[in-house]
Amino acid sequence: MSSIISNPSERRMVLAGGRAHPELAEAVAADMGIELLPTTAYTFANGELYVRFGESVRGADAFILQSHAAPINEAIMEQLIMVDAMKRASAKRVTVIMPCYGYARQDKKHKGREPISARLMADLFKTAGADRIMSVDLHTSQIQGFFDGPVDHLWAMPLLAQYVRSRVAPGNLTIVSPDAGRVRLADQWSDHLGAPLAIIHKRRDPSVPNQVKVHELVGEVEGRTCVLVDDMIDTGGTIVQAAEALFENGAKDVIVASTHGLLSGPAVERLRDSGISEVVVTDTLPIAEDKRWDGLTVLSIAPLIARAIHEVFEDGSVTSLFNGNV
Amino acid sequence: MSSIISNPSERRMVLAGGRAHPELAEAVAADMGIELLPTTAYTFANGELYVRFGESVRGADAFILQSHAAPINEAIMEQLIMVDAMKRASAKRVTVIMPCYGYARQDKKHKGREPISARLMADLFKTAGADRIMSVDLHTSQIQGFFDGPVDHLWAMPLLAQYVRSRVAPGNLTIVSPDAGRVRLADQWSDHLGAPLAIIHKRRDPSVPNQVKVHELVGEVEGRTCVLVDDMIDTGGTIVQAAEALFENGAKDVIVASTHGLLSGPAVERLRDSGISEVVVTDTLPIAEDKRWDGLTVLSIAPLIARAIHEVFEDGSVTSLFNGNV
Amino acid sequence: MSSIISNPSERRMVLAGGRAHPELAEAVAADMGIELLPTTAYTFANGELYVRFGESVRGADAFILQSHAAPINEAIMEQLIMVDAMKRASAKRVTVIMPCYGYARQDKKHKGREPISARLMADLFKTAGADRIMSVDLHTSQIQGFFDGPVDHLWAMPLLAQYVRSRVAPGNLTIVSPDAGRVRLADQWSDHLGAPLAIIHKRRDPSVPNQVKVHELVGEVEGRTCVLVDDMIDTGGTIVQAAEALFENGAKDVIVASTHGLLSGPAVERLRDSGISEVVVTDTLPIAEDKRWDGLTVLSIAPLIARAIHEVFEDGSVTSLFNGNV
Amino acid sequence: MSSIISNPSERRMVLAGGRAHPELAEAVAADMGIELLPTTAYTFANGELYVRFGESVRGADAFILQSHAAPINEAIMEQLIMVDAMKRASAKRVTVIMPCYGYARQDKKHKGREPISARLMADLFKTAGADRIMSVDLHTSQIQGFFDGPVDHLWAMPLLAQYVRSRVAPGNLTIVSPDAGRVRLADQWSDHLGAPLAIIHKRRDPSVPNQVKVHELVGEVEGRTCVLVDDMIDTGGTIVQAAEALFENGAKDVIVASTHGLLSGPAVERLRDSGISEVVVTDTLPIAEDKRWDGLTVLSIAPLIARAIHEVFEDGSVTSLFNGNV
Amino acid sequence: MSSIISNPSERRMVLAGGRAHPELAEAVAADMGIELLPTTAYTFANGELYVRFGESVRGADAFILQSHAAPINEAIMEQLIMVDAMKRASAKRVTVIMPCYGYARQDKKHKGREPISARLMADLFKTAGADRIMSVDLHTSQIQGFFDGPVDHLWAMPLLAQYVRSRVAPGNLTIVSPDAGRVRLADQWSDHLGAPLAIIHKRRDPSVPNQVKVHELVGEVEGRTCVLVDDMIDTGGTIVQAAEALFENGAKDVIVASTHGLLSGPAVERLRDSGISEVVVTDTLPIAEDKRWDGLTVLSIAPLIARAIHEVFEDGSVTSLFNGNV
Amino acid sequence: MSSIISNPSERRMVLAGGRAHPELAEAVAADMGIELLPTTAYTFANGELYVRFGESVRGADAFILQSHAAPINEAIMEQLIMVDAMKRASAKRVTVIMPCYGYARQDKKHKGREPISARLMADLFKTAGADRIMSVDLHTSQIQGFFDGPVDHLWAMPLLAQYVRSRVAPGNLTIVSPDAGRVRLADQWSDHLGAPLAIIHKRRDPSVPNQVKVHELVGEVEGRTCVLVDDMIDTGGTIVQAAEALFENGAKDVIVASTHGLLSGPAVERLRDSGISEVVVTDTLPIAEDKRWDGLTVLSIAPLIARAIHEVFEDGSVTSLFNGNV
Repeated sequence: MSSIISNPSERRMVLAGGRAHPELAEAVAADMGIELLPTTAYTFANGELYVRFGESVRGADAFILQSHAAPINEAIMEQLIMVDAMKRASAKRVTVIMPCYGYARQDKKHKGREPISARLMADLFKTAGADRIMSVDLHTSQIQGFFDGPVDHLWAMPLLAQYVRSRVAPGNLTIVSPDAGRVRLADQWSDHLGAPLAIIHKRRDPSVPNQVKVHELVGEVEGRTCVLVDDMIDTGGTIVQAAEALFENGAKDVIVASTHGLLSGPAVERLRDSGISEVVVTDTLPIAEDKRWDGLTVLSIAPLIARAIHEVFEDGSVTSLFNGNV
Repeated sequence: MSSIISNPSERRMVLAGGRAHPELAEAVAADMGIELLPTTAYTFANGELYVRFGESVRGADAFILQSHAAPINEAIMEQLIMVDAMKRASAKRVTVIMPCYGYARQDKKHKGREPISARLMADLFKTAGADRIMSVDLHTSQIQGFFDGPVDHLWAMPLLAQYVRSRVAPGNLTIVSPDAGRVRLADQWSDHLGAPLAIIHKRRDPSVPNQVKVHELVGEVEGRTCVLVDDMIDTGGTIVQAAEALFENGAKDVIVASTHGLLSGPAVERLRDSGISEVVVTDTLPIAEDKRWDGLTVLSIAPLIARAIHEVFEDGSVTSLFNGNV
Repeated sequence: MSSIISNPSERRMVLAGGRAHPELAEAVAADMGIELLPTTAYTFANGELYVRFGESVRGADAFILQSHAAPINEAIMEQLIMVDAMKRASAKRVTVIMPCYGYARQDKKHKGREPISARLMADLFKTAGADRIMSVDLHTSQIQGFFDGPVDHLWAMPLLAQYVRSRVAPGNLTIVSPDAGRVRLADQWSDHLGAPLAIIHKRRDPSVPNQVKVHELVGEVEGRTCVLVDDMIDTGGTIVQAAEALFENGAKDVIVASTHGLLSGPAVERLRDSGISEVVVTDTLPIAEDKRWDGLTVLSIAPLIARAIHEVFEDGSVTSLFNGNV
Repeated sequence: MSSIISNPSERRMVLAGGRAHPELAEAVAADMGIELLPTTAYTFANGELYVRFGESVRGADAFILQSHAAPINEAIMEQLIMVDAMKRASAKRVTVIMPCYGYARQDKKHKGREPISARLMADLFKTAGADRIMSVDLHTSQIQGFFDGPVDHLWAMPLLAQYVRSRVAPGNLTIVSPDAGRVRLADQWSDHLGAPLAIIHKRRDPSVPNQVKVHELVGEVEGRTCVLVDDMIDTGGTIVQAAEALFENGAKDVIVASTHGLLSGPAVERLRDSGISEVVVTDTLPIAEDKRWDGLTVLSIAPLIARAIHEVFEDGSVTSLFNGNV
Repeated sequence: MSSIISNPSERRMVLAGGRAHPELAEAVAADMGIELLPTTAYTFANGELYVRFGESVRGADAFILQSHAAPINEAIMEQLIMVDAMKRASAKRVTVIMPCYGYARQDKKHKGREPISARLMADLFKTAGADRIMSVDLHTSQIQGFFDGPVDHLWAMPLLAQYVRSRVAPGNLTIVSPDAGRVRLADQWSDHLGAPLAIIHKRRDPSVPNQVKVHELVGEVEGRTCVLVDDMIDTGGTIVQAAEALFENGAKDVIVASTHGLLSGPAVERLRDSGISEVVVTDTLPIAEDKRWDGLTVLSIAPLIARAIHEVFEDGSVTSLFNGNV
Repeated sequence: MSSIISNPSERRMVLAGGRAHPELAEAVAADMGIELLPTTAYTFANGELYVRFGESVRGADAFILQSHAAPINEAIMEQLIMVDAMKRASAKRVTVIMPCYGYARQDKKHKGREPISARLMADLFKTAGADRIMSVDLHTSQIQGFFDGPVDHLWAMPLLAQYVRSRVAPGNLTIVSPDAGRVRLADQWSDHLGAPLAIIHKRRDPSVPNQVKVHELVGEVEGRTCVLVDDMIDTGGTIVQAAEALFENGAKDVIVASTHGLLSGPAVERLRDSGISEVVVTDTLPIAEDKRWDGLTVLSIAPLIARAIHEVFEDGSVTSLFNGNV
């Protein structure tokens, strides 16, 4: 048929990074052996953002990485604008990488007339042109269902757990959930390391009606090295109170392991002064120099993301990378 | 302007019921002092369903109530078809009432290549023409975010708790969560009744590596009347194992309170033989005569639904009806 | 450009089958020389369905075959859930194969306040994530227009006609439509086999007002072998009454040829006792052993579907496979 | 609550007409006792259309009537543009009235690589902003399913049949379908008038293989007044050939009754010279003076449309107006 | 029909304001004689925003006013979240009031691989749940077409022009466009005030190839009071350069009139030092005390918005309020 | 994995042309060294259009070229129908090429209750199945934002300018905008050719209140060869009046350069009699023989479109082809 031209097909991928956490995007690119897509981005005097890609992306399998770090609304808007530009520049498929999914905690209505901002975010990215989302350790797994399309849910626990194991023999560890909402995460750690489990939760003393809630410990921690696990450390309040309860119950040492280190407001001061011997987080969010102290260890999430991008681009499957989305 | 006709406006509502649980629809209608919309529904020889409404619904505020009871896929499909018929018959707004939301437990991917059926259900009803959803005690609150529109999330706990309080003085009660996933619900009960809290959860013994998981009790139940709370009782396995653990720990009595009584498979036999003194559920799902025994109390959810419909139709707001959606 | 990785592209296809008619899916796979995608599917105690694919489908051209057989609503729901799982597992394109399109007969409103369930089905599959539909002999061709995307409309008539020709010389055949609605199908047979045409239709006797309708024969069947053609045999009522009218008008023999053998309710008994010498259907629907009798011939539709899948995957075109969709 | 203002609600409706058939819009308005919405519409030198409404339509229940008459693409585009203007001017609901639905005959793919233009029209109007469609005697009832929303399917047969009955006693009438595709319509006439039925259809002579197709008559017409019924008369070829077959079979007289009088190309000449004593159509399409002759009777469809608009606006229901959509 | 309840209908409206410019929302509410909807809004430590409405909005006609002021991305995100909360709380209709439309200047691609952020904003608000948009003096009128629904385009020029006229007799005024892109706006002023027109534009001197562009004046300004008009004053660079050109050409006095006073970065200093005698803006954006100086006059836009809300709620029409959207 | 078949991938493209300007489609195909997709298209007696493609397009990258020439609504509808047929025939991607975008001038509401037809066109093509749009010199660049997807905005200016330069030495040229709305275009020409700029615009004489508007010249044209530039020449009124003003101001010669030659109504006569020495247009629209005269030069746009198709198909990027969309 003379009306048809054939050519051998080839697939291309590009990786672009926003301005919220350029070091991470660079690290992912370096891990993959590529360079980031040249991108011009700046902020106008009135605060409006501008983005332009410096090379053709026609037909490319595009990945746009942006950490939803403070100022978080600018980070999200910049990524939305990048997605729009990518779509209009004829990228074939756009994967939005948000290592820490913004607004994930507003995943339901706690009271009437509230938004469900985590669903809203999924819809905004879909509208801008996102075909798929990649994120690390979502606050609740149900958020996968907020996006109408594939979600690559990466899993940082093995990375964190391997580090903890390198520091303390598992036989000395007890995994602790800082509140009732993180018990499932602690359970995964416990399975992974073969370490016992304990729980801190707020409850009223059953023998004293109308008393205020206290942080109660469930399980044995006497003389143990406790690993407090959580998906994110925001202002550090819950974690520090949990650590206090552990020490009060005879814990020998407390380590904190958390995927996302928001470290907002008083977090650094609180953690540094808490008796916690080490706080381990990943760099899904940027951690400024003035927020780092001797007791903080930051593990790089870049190799995990790099490997996931590779698998997505190559249509491969490596179960160990993903939590519920192989 | 002669090109325009004015007429005084009036609003109408209709309530239609599917065939999965006609008694509930009738009870709701009776409570509201209306009759159900005359509806013809039958099943063809090959299993296809047919529905037709017997009166005009043009411009009406339509409510379609169907319990997602076994055979659950027929119940869901019948409701989808009713929504389609209602939309095409020019109803102004269609509210889907699913007292027990089907497939709510598949609200995330536990492993790769699974569906998220709870999101799928929300999308199917949206596509058929649902403008809003009303449901009682969703398995997880995040499911509200699966539907792109308002969700009226009704709250049966006050109804169940009031009944329990009428049977046992709160001072003798301890609220118990049968596993880690229901702790939040137990906490709400505890707040509501001012009763202490205990938790059953599966965990490995920290002192014996590689041992199988056991049902461990957290909290004091010795000599107490325990109220095991859950959103649904399916085959009854978890509840009965939890009750055994309570008795082993010296509980005086065990009552079970749950919104949705699925009572599938061996549930009735298990519960009847368990030493549990009373099981309290609502009739969000039909409970056949042969599934009822002396120890089962079924409270009517109809007044709650009736009042919610009334508030939705009248654009009113009664906070106490709703959990997170006033 | 160092920001871009190239790799030679390769296309993959997978074929998954639901539980309604596993033999057909197996037969199609065998015909194509492949194995079915390993799939876990089961039904929970309360009737909810669960599906999970056992291998990666990232980037694959996925085909999901499910017969809409009784219990038909479960079959449809299972296929919807499979489509959702396939979409979320990053299949590149999802083709839904429904050899017999469920609810096809409710393709219009016969009366007010009815659904148009055939359109609803198209929309439900689109919502779940179907990119295209493949079906055999739709009840009306307009159903192609219900789906917003490509529809591969396969055509079983050549298969059935070839079988009939192998049994009876075309010179002895008369093609008969069992009612006015199937005349176009009968006409296609007539063209294909070069055989004359006759019609049975219900009408009132023009000379006797107010008389009940009778089955009237149009055309000559005296001494002929009549082939009654229809798209589906449900309860068999229409077909058997038509056969009676043919025998009354002197037909020598009656053969029935129909694509879809629903054989619901009294169908088998009726057909077996009717004097019809042979009923020929395809296996678009499963036919249980207790619904088979000596006079029933079941032709395999698998080669036709296998070839169509091949053409779709390879972007080929074989006109003879398709009815109105080359 | 001081943040809320209340006011008594009032509903308004407006009726706008396109330029394809202004007499019909005027007649509908007159029948309703209103005036048409003042509308400016003209065609630019390059053929682009312009429309503007002359009065506020904010919050109005808007009806836009346009006959899809030649030049049909301009008529359709003008109506689409009117819908867009109405939507952007904040009409509350937009009902598109297309007395004769354009492109209705392309309702399926007859061959591969064809459009399904009837579905495309439904989608174009939905996109432009149509909330519902009103039409008279759709070519096939399945077209109702092409629109994603309510379709008011009006029914002109009673109007036409009443006229025919006023001219000829039913006892002398035979209803005739001009081809196999209109048998259902003829059957409705037959039921309505209590008159016998006959069918003309093309078929090959069964006794002479390979012969060309002939127009064969089924049923008795000798000495009868035959009413040939069809949904539309386009070029008149089928109707005139059917009339010839009727006269050849001894028909005493032939009347033609059809809803839509397209009367394209040679239609008028053919019909006038055919021996048909009277052709009865409605004015769903404009019929120019030079297309009218003594044997043509044009009944006004305006009262039916006016009454339907009234029922839609008032949320009423008059079954007799509608075919399958009360 | 006993299945239907009727009640007299009443319409309600609510007005909610974001935190970017609370004074404007208060002023609009005061002008309408109502109170703002009680709203809780705050920013979490990590920058995430939270919003909750304090009263029921079921069935209400809701208006959400937010100025897209710096930090502009937070302002936009807060409004998106408010829309989501309003939709989920069952408001009947949501109108987004953005007195100054954010990202309006990125309304096209100037170069390849850019976003069209103004279209993106329209889509984001649509996705969140906006039914209509109200804005004042859009940067280009084409932005109306970016939103899929009604846009109320308010027109501040009469307000500004009336003020200018109260200061200087029109006979002494010359209207000046500061660049080629604002000529249409200047033309409207000229028509409105009956004053002559002049234009400043950048161009290369035709007689000197390769020379840099200069600000050239077109028209007569010698001894006149010039009114430089623009839709917004951002950093003030263009305006101040235009004023210099006017003075160089003998202008007696220069007044600046602009709808939106962004006054970013060096704007205040530039304008204050420029010889411009008065800058007149409206308060579509908040203007902090430290950005006000003697030469700045801020007119209140609140009465215009209040009146427009009233007309929208009452389905009225006051042409003078709107630019291209009555 | 035996469930997966691999095959080497290959990409195909097809180019189909509508009937509005077959010469252009043929020229593009010839330039690319291919043949047009065989296409059957005709118009039924009642004006309905029919299209069918003659070869398989499964999986193809399809380009559909149609000039929006008079009768413009038929041209647009034919292209919409072609897109529908292409989508349903399983083309992988559909690019709509509209060399001159119809209804581009209705890109905003000039007054209330008008449509925004340019946005409507974008939505209609999206609905029909267009994945991307390619057009030449849109009336306003904002129209790019009307389409939800990539827009290839080709740029004819270099082609026209090169021709003009070949006729007149740039040193003798002055670029003239015929009204205020085309100044940006004239500015681009000026930059490209290094020629000075002048502007014609309508304004009232500032010294004579209430006088009618006159065409005023801004800039120097005495003794120069003026190039009047515009995106389209419709009836020619504006251009001819501008030319008159140039001659009155001493211009030596006037050349007109415009991308789209609509040449509607009196255009040819006006231009021929105007003293304009040469009118240069491209063939984005067909120009009938009787609309051609000695002073008209028609440049072929085909090579530009051919090269753009090639780049789109090959995912290449040639900045010089595109205006704001590389």
